[in-house]
Formats: sequence, C-alpha cells, structure tokens
Amino acid sequence: MGRFTTDHTKKLTSSFRFFILIPLPLIAMSSSSSPPVTIHTINPKVLECEYVVRGDMVMQAQRLQQELQAKPGSHPFDEILYCNIGNPQSFGQQPITFFREVLALCDHPSILDRSETQRLFSADSIRRAQQILDLIPGKATGAYSHTQGVKGLRDQIAVAIEARDGFPADPNDIFLTSPAIHMMLQLLIRSENDGVLCPVPHYPLYSASIALHGGALVPYYLDEAKGWGLEISELQKQLKEAQSNGITVRALVVINPGNPTGQVLAEDNQRGIVEFCKKENLVLIADEVYQENVYVDEKKFHSFKKVSRSMGYGEDDIALVSFQSVSKGYCGECGKRGGYMEVTGFSADVREQIYKVASVNLCSNISGQILTSLVMNPPKAGDESYESYMAEKNEILSSLARRAKMLEDAFNSLEGITCNKAEGALYVFPRLHLPQKAIDAAKALKKAPDAFYVSRLLEATGIVVLPGSGFGQVPGTWHFRCSILPQEEKIPAVVSRLAAFHEAFMAEFHD
Amino acid sequence: MGRFTTDHTKKLTSSFRFFILIPLPLIAMSSSSSPPVTIHTINPKVLECEYVVRGDMVMQAQRLQQELQAKPGSHPFDEILYCNIGNPQSFGQQPITFFREVLALCDHPSILDRSETQRLFSADSIRRAQQILDLIPGKATGAYSHTQGVKGLRDQIAVAIEARDGFPADPNDIFLTSPAIHMMLQLLIRSENDGVLCPVPHYPLYSASIALHGGALVPYYLDEAKGWGLEISELQKQLKEAQSNGITVRALVVINPGNPTGQVLAEDNQRGIVEFCKKENLVLIADEVYQENVYVDEKKFHSFKKVSRSMGYGEDDIALVSFQSVSKGYCGECGKRGGYMEVTGFSADVREQIYKVASVNLCSNISGQILTSLVMNPPKAGDESYESYMAEKNEILSSLARRAKMLEDAFNSLEGITCNKAEGALYVFPRLHLPQKAIDAAKALKKAPDAFYVSRLLEATGIVVLPGSGFGQVPGTWHFRCSILPQEEKIPAVVSRLAAFHEAFMAEFHD
Repeated sequence: MGRFTTDHTKKLTSSFRFFILIPLPLIAMSSSSSPPVTIHTINPKVLECEYVVRGDMVMQAQRLQQELQAKPGSHPFDEILYCNIGNPQSFGQQPITFFREVLALCDHPSILDRSETQRLFSADSIRRAQQILDLIPGKATGAYSHTQGVKGLRDQIAVAIEARDGFPADPNDIFLTSPAIHMMLQLLIRSENDGVLCPVPHYPLYSASIALHGGALVPYYLDEAKGWGLEISELQKQLKEAQSNGITVRALVVINPGNPTGQVLAEDNQRGIVEFCKKENLVLIADEVYQENVYVDEKKFHSFKKVSRSMGYGEDDIALVSFQSVSKGYCGECGKRGGYMEVTGFSADVREQIYKVASVNLCSNISGQILTSLVMNPPKAGDESYESYMAEKNEILSSLARRAKMLEDAFNSLEGITCNKAEGALYVFPRLHLPQKAIDAAKALKKAPDAFYVSRLLEATGIVVLPGSGFGQVPGTWHFRCSILPQEEKIPAVVSRLAAFHEAFMAEFHD
Repeated sequence: MGRFTTDHTKKLTSSFRFFILIPLPLIAMSSSSSPPVTIHTINPKVLECEYVVRGDMVMQAQRLQQELQAKPGSHPFDEILYCNIGNPQSFGQQPITFFREVLALCDHPSILDRSETQRLFSADSIRRAQQILDLIPGKATGAYSHTQGVKGLRDQIAVAIEARDGFPADPNDIFLTSPAIHMMLQLLIRSENDGVLCPVPHYPLYSASIALHGGALVPYYLDEAKGWGLEISELQKQLKEAQSNGITVRALVVINPGNPTGQVLAEDNQRGIVEFCKKENLVLIADEVYQENVYVDEKKFHSFKKVSRSMGYGEDDIALVSFQSVSKGYCGECGKRGGYMEVTGFSADVREQIYKVASVNLCSNISGQILTSLVMNPPKAGDESYESYMAEKNEILSSLARRAKMLEDAFNSLEGITCNKAEGALYVFPRLHLPQKAIDAAKALKKAPDAFYVSRLLEATGIVVLPGSGFGQVPGTWHFRCSILPQEEKIPAVVSRLAAFHEAFMAEFHD
C-alpha cells in the first residue's frame, strides 16, 4: 500500500526479487520438488496489499475467543467486543422488519397468495413484494439479472436519488454492484505511474485495492486540529508533488461522512472540492455510504452529485462516481452485500468498458439488489408499515448518535487521549499521546506504538479496535479506530474497562 | 484475451500507444478541456478483456426485445430466447421449494415460532432454518461473516464433500465466495510472462480474467473428433511451446463437465491430468460447477480431489483448487451468487495471502452461503421434504437430459452442422460447416463467419446463441454455443425455427 508498506512486506518483496535472480539451472533443478506456488512466486501486488480491518488484530481476537470457549475464565473478560468493523447486526442490531418481510416473500413467492401470509406479514410488504416480482423478468429471483442490476429496481433507485438531490438521475447510470471500488480503480490504473488522491486517514479498502491494481496512492492529510478538515490547499500541494514525481493523478477519493474519522463535510467545502476536480481534470470518487449516519444538528449530508449540479456543472463538466451501500446507514445489512454506484460524466465508449468489466462478474445478488431498492424507497406516510419502520429507524439512529457522543466524551476524559467530534459514520478515531517509554517498548517488539497499544488493550479487555497505522496518519502521531456499535446499555461497562486499561497502561509507561 | 484479441481491440490499443507518444505540450494544452477519462486513457487490460457471454449478441438481442415491446409484430418472432447463457430460471425453471423455504425463514426469523408458519412451511425447512441460524454468530444473517464464510456452514459443506469423495475435507480449506476464479488468477499472475493453460474452446470468464490480470492464456485444444477429448500429449506440446516462448506456466484449468463443450472426462483421463500437473508442477484449477449435470449413463462425475487422493497424492503432493456453484446443477440459482472453492496443497503462508485477498471483499452474501450449504446437504430420506425435493430435482435433471438429446439430434440432422454428444453441463457446441460464399459475406462485413451466422439467426428467429469465436476454436473451424435450457415443450418449435433458418441460410450462400 504505497508509502504504508510494512517492513514485513518489504522483506518478502525483496526476497522475491532475489529469487528471480538466482541462476536458471538451479530453478530447473528445483522445479519438480518445490511446490508450484510459494510466497516468493505469488503476485507481488498481493503481497503489497494490506487490509487492517481483517488483519492481525482480528486473528488475535479469534484466538482469544477460542481460548475463552475452550476454557471459560481464562481471560479477564468473558466476551470479545468486535469494535474493529462497522458490522451493526453482529452487536444485535435488529434488521428493519419491513425490509426482511419483503426479502422473505421475494425468496418464496409461492406463499404470497396464502391466507396465513396475510396474518404473518404486513399488507404493504406483501404488496411491495408483488410489485418487485413484477419488475423482475419472469419474476425469476433466481436468475442472473442485467449486468447493471434489474432495470425496474434501478428505475426506482433513480427516482429516489432525484428526490434526495433535486436533480435528474438516469437508471442507466446506476450499477447495482458490490465491488464497485475495485471496478473503478481497475478502470483507471494503468501502471505504477497512475495515482489516486486518497485521504489520510482513510478506509484501507482504498489502499488495498490500489495496491492490488498496481497504482500509486497519493495521500492528502486531513487536518485533525480542524476536526479532520479537508483543505483544498493540501489537495493542491499533494497533487503537484505527485506530478513532479512523474505520477499521473487520475482521481480524488472523498469519503463523506468520513471513515475512520467521522467528520461531515460542509457544503461550501464540497464546492471547493468539485472546483478542484474540475480544474485539475480528476474523476471525483465520492464514497457516500454513510449518508444516513449524521449525528449532529449543525451538519447535513449533501451528495456530491447535488453539489456539483447546483453549481451548474452537468454531465459533460465533471466525471463523478458515487457509492451507496445497504451495509451502513440505519439498515446495517452487511451480510446482504447490496449497494450501487452512480456513474456520471463519462463518455459512451468508456461507459461501455465499465459495463464490460461489470459483466465479467455477471450481476450482483438479487436479494441485495432488492434490498438496495427498499433502502432507497422505504415505506411512506400512510403505508401500514410506515410507523413501525420510522420507529425502528429513529431508534437505531438516535441510539447511534448517543453512543457516538458517549464514546467521544469518554475518550476526551482520559489523560493522553483526544478525540474529535463524532459527526457521522460509525467510528471515532481518537489520538493517543503516548509516553516515550511506551513508544520505546513498542519499537523493541518491532510494532507501531498504536498497534502495541491496541494489542495490549485487547489482551486486557477483549475490546478489538484497530491501530491508526492501518489507516494512515501524520507520521509521529498515533490513533485507533473504534466503532460506535456496542449495545448502548453496555457502553458504560466498555468505557470503564477502557479507562481502567488506559490508566494502567499510562502508569506502566510513565516517563 | 491473448491470442483471441479482436481487430477492434488491437486498433484501440495502438491508438493508446500513439496517444502517449504525442508531444507533451499538446497534452498540457488539452488537459483541462479533454475529459479526465477517455477510451485512450483507461487501463489497456480492460480494453483487452472480452466476454462474449454478455457481449454484442446480447446487446443486439436487447435491441430487438425493445423493438418487439414498442411495436409487436415488427419481427418474424414474438419472443427472444436467450440461449446465450446458462440461466435456468430465466426460462421458467422453478427453484427447489425446500431451499427457498429455508432462505425465506432465515431472512425473516421472527416468524419461526408462529403457528401460521407451520401451516405455510414444511416442518424440516423450519427445523433446518433454526439449525442454520444457530450456526451463525448471534443468528445475525445481516452481519458480515468470517472472510471464508460462516464456519458452521463450512463444516457442513466439508462433511458433504467427504461423503461425495470418500476422502477427508477440511472446513478451513473452503472459501464461500463468488469471484473465486478472479481471486486465484490474481494470486498466480505476476506479469505477462505468467501463463495459464486453458482449454480451447473454454468458458470465456477465464480469458477475460487472465486479460484483466495481465497474464498469458496458453491454449490447449480439445479434440472435437474424439468427443472434445483432452489429450495429455496436447497439454505437453502446448506447455513446451509456451515455455520456449519465455512463459512460466503456473496452472492448468480443466472444466469438467465441459463448458461450452459438454463432455464429461473419464476417470482414467483425469488421472493422466493429475500426473501431468504433478510432473510439471502446475496448480490444477478444476472448474466442477456442472458436477450434477451429467446426462449419460456411461459417464460419472469424479472430483479431481477424489481422483488425486485415490492415486495416493495427499495435501503435500498437489496444489488443487475446485470450484462449485449454486448457479448450475438442478438448482440453477444464478441470482443468489453462491458457491465455494476448496483450496488444498498450498503452504500456510500462501494460504494466508489467499485469505487476505478474500478479506478485501469482506465476505460473500449470507443467503448465497446458506444456499451453498443446502445444495451440498439437501433433504435426506425420512425428512418431510425428501420426496418432493427428489421429485423436483429428478424432473429438472431428466428434462435437461431429454432437452440436450433433442438439440444434439436436431443439429446432427441438419446438413452442414455436426454436434458432439451432450454428456453434461448446460450447452451444446455444434460445428458449422459453412459454404465459402457465407465466409466471404462475413468477411465483407468484417465479422467472423460464426458471428455472422448467429447474428442472422437472431434476426430471423429471436434465438440468441453465441459464436464459437468467443470461446476459442481451431482456426478455420466455426461453431456456436447453445444452452439446452428452453422449456421442453417449446423445443420442437425452437428446432423447427432453427432448421428453417439454417436451410434458408445454406441455400442463400450455396457454393
């Protein structure tokens, strides 16, 4: 992952280089006895790729969980709290009833006409399932769909985007797909000389995907002192530096609301970003999967599509990709693998190539497609399910807001930790001000200081958070990402475990 | 796609090369007015990639379908028959009731305890859904699972593989995943000097994926005269030739039963293939997604895992990857995007890298994971659903066998067409013996002769089949792939439309 490459990877990469330089007869001799694939003979881009969200900390947590199962009481905690990932339902968040009713009926449509079904399911879920089945050719929920997803579902999503933004949306611009990030980066990256501007810190799927496609991650730093602010001058500076190093910068990634940083961009800032992309001729890749997750009254989510259209920029003026997902928001349906990307401002021949790459994956799963259409078109006032839907949604979002605030306050109350406001998304990213002795102890173990801290935290409390070094950070600063997802009633206990660990840690390594 | 590159792609690639040679000041001048992404500035590997299954013929068919909808009677047929793809439920094949019952209950578990549910669902589907929910941590079907898939489901699948093969299977070798082909090729291909032996003809997902990962497709030709036989001498010859051209061949792809060719390998032949991979130190990539689709008594499916273990080769002797999918077989659940790969014979450090690449996609959709476990563990004798399940399954498989035979016989009855036995999978791949005048007419239109033929067939009959040139074939021979999926009662009409077209075509171009 570019400049975040670890020592371990560097070592492997250089062994690989060494390997291909050994004399040919030696290779021939060993060819039948050595296995066909070794760590030295796999694609070096795979070795380069790092993905902390599912990395060492999760392995360590799984080991502890097995030990707890095998020998209850073997650790000073009785459960592992997976705050490493935005996976709401793993913490017991319940799915939205209406959505699951419709999905179940679409999976098993032969019960739609039975009288028992009317007693088990809401009337509008039955009606909605019938409507959706009518949109699917032959009502065949088990068939491959159009490469971009069922046309009728994309029609509904386009209408919902129009309602959200106040500007037209075209169903032909919508790709119902899950690995959308990979698809766009695969399109843009031709060689190690093609770069993509990414925020630091950032969701490491971007660095992992850039590494797998062999491109260059061009970092721009969010300003922690200004609430993880995104400064246009920083974009400009990093762009020029990359260009002077021979990098062709092709796109700018903006994550709004921010992951892992939780900030929500002001509309004025967004306009500056659009201008920058326009002026520098960059594709604007807008990761907007947390658009429903805004917790403060003074900030609102605005899509980059809406902002650019309201500036008067149309289809021919700016190339824009927006991601949305059913995994986040109030819905939290990570296991359904549903989402869409809206692709505007590309020429017809480039669009054909995007379509072709999408078609190699045939289509995304139909339940995920249906769920995406439901998230974008939930029950409306007057529908039988409307009140229960709104109650479920509001309970989840208001609880998330309370949890974000509780964690933010808790971290700020600890000596040696500062935490920016959790305005949105599902995480806080507090900064660790570590004593030199802790930094030295980490170095002795060949660990980044924040990786050392979070590993000790896990061993002591069962709480899994991720080191800032996996997300990128200003060199010499240390952070961790913690999801805000533990059940609300458990947060006081989580906070007191965290505080007790932190105080003991700071005491142990006091300068 | 390596040596199958079309003229169109070559042209675009050379324009790309030209583009980067134009003087720098010109680029600088045009940088703010030209769009950030053009067909000349996308990843050339994307341009190289071809995927006929969703290519020109499908575009042409969609256009005709729109014309028929807008103006009924505007063509000499009233529906489009999509024989281009193995998509059973798009032809009205019904899903297996038990599978859909379980999926619906897992989607909406809150109805499990209701009395109405017992009247709507079979008792064993309710029991199975409860068992499956107990395997999922927190019963959370909306949560991300373990990267390789829910452990409990993998346990069940491993038991089923053991029962199928008579040899142990390890749940840790199983990855519940949909883009398994991409993942393995991404691991193996380092540069354009790494090659993968693929059958010709072959399912073009392999050539598309090799092109996207920048490797070399090393073709080996199946022997049409011997029922699409796979000769070890041909593997040996092509391997040596590739090696003498500086290609490091890393893996052998075998598709059994064959796609698009429909043959089923004899066990003795499979042993020869295993020996070849062992001797030449190649990863054996076994595409076994049609393992349930065998239609002739004299052939049986044997997994390569079973064959290699029965030869005495264990985990340390051969690197083997096997693909299975819920999209094919009698189940035909293409829209669910479920399947697994079983990965054996790789060292622990390479396995870690496979895991890491899988983890970048987080996990496959949970409904697809559940369905995969159901396909591998269907109802058993004594279960309430067993009889209806077996009746549904047998009806589908026996009808597919009858349809395969009807189409094979129909093609063989036509002058100028020969068709090998349809032993398995979902396709026939008849050979066209075209008159020179037809070949000349195609050339005048800059089309491959088989592409010309299938395009004319579509315009005349509404039947979508794919040209052999999209799958690879011996130069100078012409074929098309036709799925065996049209409804059985429609096949006589399909055959007579095909025959009438073919006779008219041959008469038109008679030498």
